[in-house]
This record gives sequence, C-alpha cells and structure tokens, in this order.
Amino acid sequence: MIEFVGHVRFVDIIEFLGTFAFAISGVRMASTKNFDLFGAFTIGFVTAIGGGTLRDLFIGVTPFWMLNHVYLWATLLALLFVILFKSKVVKLQYTFFLFDSIGLGLFVVVGTEKTLAMEFAPWVAVIMGTITGSFGGMLRDILITQIPLIFRKEIYALACVVGAIFFTIGYASGMNIVINEVATASIVILTRILAVKFKWHLPTLKGEKSYD
Amino acid sequence: MIEFVGHVRFVDIIEFLGTFAFAISGVRMASTKNFDLFGAFTIGFVTAIGGGTLRDLFIGVTPFWMLNHVYLWATLLALLFVILFKSKVVKLQYTFFLFDSIGLGLFVVVGTEKTLAMEFAPWVAVIMGTITGSFGGMLRDILITQIPLIFRKEIYALACVVGAIFFTIGYASGMNIVINEVATASIVILTRILAVKFKWHLPTLKGEKSYD
Amino acid sequence: MIEFVGHVRFVDIIEFLGTFAFAISGVRMASTKNFDLFGAFTIGFVTAIGGGTLRDLFIGVTPFWMLNHVYLWATLLALLFVILFKSKVVKLQYTFFLFDSIGLGLFVVVGTEKTLAMEFAPWVAVIMGTITGSFGGMLRDILITQIPLIFRKEIYALACVVGAIFFTIGYASGMNIVINEVATASIVILTRILAVKFKWHLPTLKGEKSYD
Repeated sequence: MIEFVGHVRFVDIIEFLGTFAFAISGVRMASTKNFDLFGAFTIGFVTAIGGGTLRDLFIGVTPFWMLNHVYLWATLLALLFVILFKSKVVKLQYTFFLFDSIGLGLFVVVGTEKTLAMEFAPWVAVIMGTITGSFGGMLRDILITQIPLIFRKEIYALACVVGAIFFTIGYASGMNIVINEVATASIVILTRILAVKFKWHLPTLKGEKSYD
Repeated sequence: MIEFVGHVRFVDIIEFLGTFAFAISGVRMASTKNFDLFGAFTIGFVTAIGGGTLRDLFIGVTPFWMLNHVYLWATLLALLFVILFKSKVVKLQYTFFLFDSIGLGLFVVVGTEKTLAMEFAPWVAVIMGTITGSFGGMLRDILITQIPLIFRKEIYALACVVGAIFFTIGYASGMNIVINEVATASIVILTRILAVKFKWHLPTLKGEKSYD
Repeated sequence: MIEFVGHVRFVDIIEFLGTFAFAISGVRMASTKNFDLFGAFTIGFVTAIGGGTLRDLFIGVTPFWMLNHVYLWATLLALLFVILFKSKVVKLQYTFFLFDSIGLGLFVVVGTEKTLAMEFAPWVAVIMGTITGSFGGMLRDILITQIPLIFRKEIYALACVVGAIFFTIGYASGMNIVINEVATASIVILTRILAVKFKWHLPTLKGEKSYD
C-alpha cells in the first residue's frame, strides 16, 4: 500500500486526516462554549497546529503551517463538517476517536523525526515528539479556560512518550525509516486505544488540602 | 498632513496612541481583578505588545519591543492615566474605544506589511496581520483567566482579516504604500466601529450539551 | 568557597537546587488539583524552565534545557521527593521557600547576564532577568487555570527587577563578574525574604465594578 500511493502521499493523507480530527475536537469543544464561527475556527486550528508550532519555535525553524496552507483547509473542512453534520458528529464519536488517535500517532512520528534530523539529542526528540502530539489539545483547553484534560486523563501523553522513545531507538539503530514510522504510529495508536478501552491511567498525585 | 509630519513620524504617533489605548484596556481589565501595580503594568504591556510579539516569533525576528523602549513608556503612561483619572476613564469610554480601534487598524497594517516584506506567502501575511491586531487582547483575557472576549464578541478579528486581505491585494498589485496603509487602517477602523454600532456579530456555533 | 568548588560548579549546584525548588512548587500545586504523575511532572518542569525558555525564544537562541538534561533530572527528583516525603514537605515549607528564593536569585542573574552578553540594551536585560525569574510561576498558575499569584502577591517580581537593575549597572561599570553575581542574587533573595517577613506589597489598583 505504501508502495502504491507513494511514501509522501501516504503520509500526507494521514496528516490531513489527523489535522482534520484534531480540528474537529477543537471546534466541538468551542461549540460547547457557544463561541462564534471565527472563535470555533481558531480553536480548531490551534488544536491542530499548536503542538507542531511550539516544537518548531523550540527547534528554531519556521512553524510548519506557514509553509503549506493545507492545514487551514483541513480546519475549514472540520468547521463545515461540524456545522453540517452536528447530530451525526455525536454518533460518529468513535470514528473521530480513531482519526484523533491516528493523527496523534502521525504527529508523534513527524515531531520526533524532524527533531532528530536536526541533530538534537535523542531525549530532546522524545520531548518534541510528545509536545507535537499533545500540546495542541492542552492549548485548546487553556483557551477555553478549562484545566487541561491531559493532566487528568488516560494515557494520552504517555502514548506519545512511548512511541517517541521507540522511534528514537529505531532511528539510532538504523532501522528502515518507513518501517520505523509505521511501527511507531501503530504503537501510539494501539496504546491510546487500549488505554481508553481498559481505562488505564497513571496514578494520581494525591493533593495536600491547600497550598499557600 | 502625511507630507507635513512625515510618513515615519505620522505612523509613530498613531502607533504610540494605539499602544497606549491597548495598554489602557489591559490595565483596566487588571483593575477589575484587584491586581497590584506590577500586575496591572504587566497586563497592560502584554495586551499592547502580545500580538506583535507572537508574529515576530513566528516570522523569526527579534520581538519589536526589544528594539525600542517607547512601548514601555506608552504602557507606563497608560498605568498613570488610569490611576490619576479613574472616574474620568469610564466617561472617556468612547474615546478609548476610538483609540483602540485606531490602534487595531495600525497594528494590522504593521503586521501584514512586515510579513510581506519578509516574503512569506500572502495568506501568511493575512494571518500575521490578524494575530498582530487581536492576539494581545486574547492573551490579556487568558492571563486573568477569562474566556477570551474575541471568541464571543463583535466582528473584532474579522475586521483584522478584512483589512489584512485588502492590504495584501494592494501590496501585490503595486498600490502606493502610504495610500494602502491609510486605506487598510480605515477599513479596519470603520468595520470595527460599524460592527459595534450596529451590533454585527458572527453566527454562534450552537453547543452540544456536553463533550467528553 | 567559590575558589574551592570553582565558579561553574558553584553556580551549577545552586542552579540545580533552584530548579529543584521551582519544580517542587509546581508539583505541589499540581497535587492540589489531583493531577496524575505525568501532569505533575509537566507542571513541575514548566515551572522550573518556563522563564528561561521564554527568555531564550525572545533573544533568539535554543532553549537552555534542550542542551542539558540536568533540568529533567531535577524535576524528576522533585516529583519523587514530593511522593516520598509528602507529609514532611509541608513541614519543610520554610526550607523550600529558601530554595525557591535562592533559585529566584540565581535565575535573575543568569537571565540578565545572558541577555547582556548578547548585546541587547540594558533595559531589555532587566526585563529578561525578570522574565527568567518570574514567568515559570506565572505559567504554572495559568496551566492550573488560577489567576497568577504574581499579579496579587508580595514583592516577587519587583525583587527580580531590583536585582536585574543592580546587575546591569554593575555589568556596565565593569564590576567583577563573580562579585556582581553574588551581590545580585543576594539582593533578590533578601528582598524576597524581607518582603514575605514584613508583608510588603505593592498598592493594589482598585477595580472599577465592571468593564465591558
């Protein structure tokens, strides 16, 4: 299949779907707060590109979405989709969860690989892969002034960390890059799906009653 | 008039007034939360320079306010003004609204032009013009943990988008730069004023009851 | 003593302790919101490195923590420490306050010195020193959607400003760099401790009843 559509186009399609799914989650979250269309579009876009943007600022390159307008179109499509198929969207919950997980897997691959290619240390690449996958959703939650889900939910960020570590080890040991990409994305996607299915979660840090 | 005071000085005066007006809105918002003087100054400064700062990080140049201390003085003046004329400030509401709109118009021009001059794509310039005009106010709202007004209010960001598109088309078609600047700023200012006067707003995205 | 352990190692030890103390404050704050271990680690790390990261983005260099993994270890140690000695941590309140103040002093020195060394204007260095010391805590508060303490509490940021101004004047007038560093850190630490002891605070900006 990768032979058939070509490596670049395969990744492009997945990236478009991932961006679309991330944007959908942002637009829907915005709709629960009665944002206007511009606000919903912005939250959707920020959710989709936030992680990669922070990564690019950290590694010192122009944010990726400034070089290709496909991310704007994916977000616009997500906005239209939520408007047109609002009732369906809820029924399609699981489909979006799958897209979202696939997007997560791909974002982790892209973020880790890009950082390694710029010759940062392996542990930096792991952090950048994790940021690429998870910072957009965190930003979405901050923008609607809600405590980021990521700090309290299932193994979301940990799926990123595990995938990014796998990719980095594969990269260092000369694994074929396409195999490494597909394996890493699969690990992230599976970890996320299994974590939700079996309600895996990290232990909570029990709180002191108050502080300061 | 532009002849008379010179192009640079004319823009400088407007930029100072715009910065002052943006800072006033930040300081006043901080005062509703009983911040101390340092907090109020910080919120005022961030409101005034936040948009241009994010733009400069994205296009990869040193944030503009690190190269000229006039923005600090404009913010300090805004803080003093709110302290000294507190009761008057409320009565001057409409004057500040005008300053704020003028500042918005100029910020959009500056942001769009700077991005085009660095040879980014036209649509990137439109986004950067919009960010320059509207991100400071969004940051102000996040810092006081309030859902950003921009996501729920009148045609604020849309005025930026319309102006930035106009400027970009004018720029591409070789329009005289000063005429383009003045026309763009006027479009932003008028759109904003008319939007408030006639309560124009974008449709709201009606919410699903809950999500996740 | 500086002779004995060497300048670099002395600063390194202090920086490790400062990072540790900042991370502790982040982890503890996260624990009051029942974050999971990943969330607590992230908040601790962001609290510790947030200020220096924003500074580095502004002055255009790679964020410092991407070049040395000691900050990750300091945060991990902080997390373990809070888990293992939870009840003790409350009793050690004052010890952490001291670490935190020492860290603050050092962060201000590092931030101001790094900016001056890159030949930015003195007033830019003062702002960068202040950001280095205080932005991490602000970010911590935003991430847990709480109005940043810094806008309402004792002379925290002002201690940074005073220290950064002292260092900048010393730097410009050719003071011995180690003496300047120690003196600056001491000024920040003492100002902070005295401010808390004697409940110094800046005047509050009394609020208008509502705005917009």
